[in-house]
Amino acid sequence: MFGRIDHIGVAVEDLDAALELYRDRLDMREQHRETVEEFGVEAVLLELGDGHVELLRPLSDDTGVGRFIERHGPGFHHVAYGIDDIDDALEAARTAGLRLLDEEPRRGIRGSRVAFLHPKSTGGVLTELVEAAH
Amino acid sequence: MFGRIDHIGVAVEDLDAALELYRDRLDMREQHRETVEEFGVEAVLLELGDGHVELLRPLSDDTGVGRFIERHGPGFHHVAYGIDDIDDALEAARTAGLRLLDEEPRRGIRGSRVAFLHPKSTGGVLTELVEAAH
Repeated sequence: MFGRIDHIGVAVEDLDAALELYRDRLDMREQHRETVEEFGVEAVLLELGDGHVELLRPLSDDTGVGRFIERHGPGFHHVAYGIDDIDDALEAARTAGLRLLDEEPRRGIRGSRVAFLHPKSTGGVLTELVEAAH
Repeated sequence: MFGRIDHIGVAVEDLDAALELYRDRLDMREQHRETVEEFGVEAVLLELGDGHVELLRPLSDDTGVGRFIERHGPGFHHVAYGIDDIDDALEAARTAGLRLLDEEPRRGIRGSRVAFLHPKSTGGVLTELVEAAH
């Protein structure tokens, strides 16, 4: 079902401070920056081989990532697995009895199609499926 | 400094239940299983492209992963970045002013050499450096 680890998403309060850490001190290349209204975040992708680290700054407290930071503080938010076809992957997840947060794919960063699985059915790890734009 | 996402480590209480989820329902191939005394865990690697998911069951409550589960419950534990030379990477991390949990590399799974960075200096994400066995 899952091809590879596409990225980990990291919730941050201060994007500049996070970039100072990841880009300047850990020497990861800034690859892309985008405000993703669908998820209420400003996101930065940092290149790591064919995967990346995705920094997520919530646009407001009343967003998924905003509420996550309020509850848990900044840090790991989700893991994303790259898949070829998100409709097939969602169907497979459904058949496997997993609880979906998104019944249908949503628009993600860089024109990707994404869907999240509920952490209660994935061992406590918020899990995203990503089909890259073609 | 970091070449790629090598794996995410997931803390689990019940390895059989976790394998039922990750191997049988999410269809990830079980690649390796090892008791890593150095870290007090029984670990299973599940293949994902050239990376993997590492399931970690603590051998006792009095281990890093055991204490983690007690505090946070099962779920994401750490991210590991693959690097070519851990001595160079540790030196670079030290120079960048990051707080190291391991001043010297330790023996990890499958004969790897590993070291952890403190989450306080990596945006709240427990971070491992991994040099694979050659």
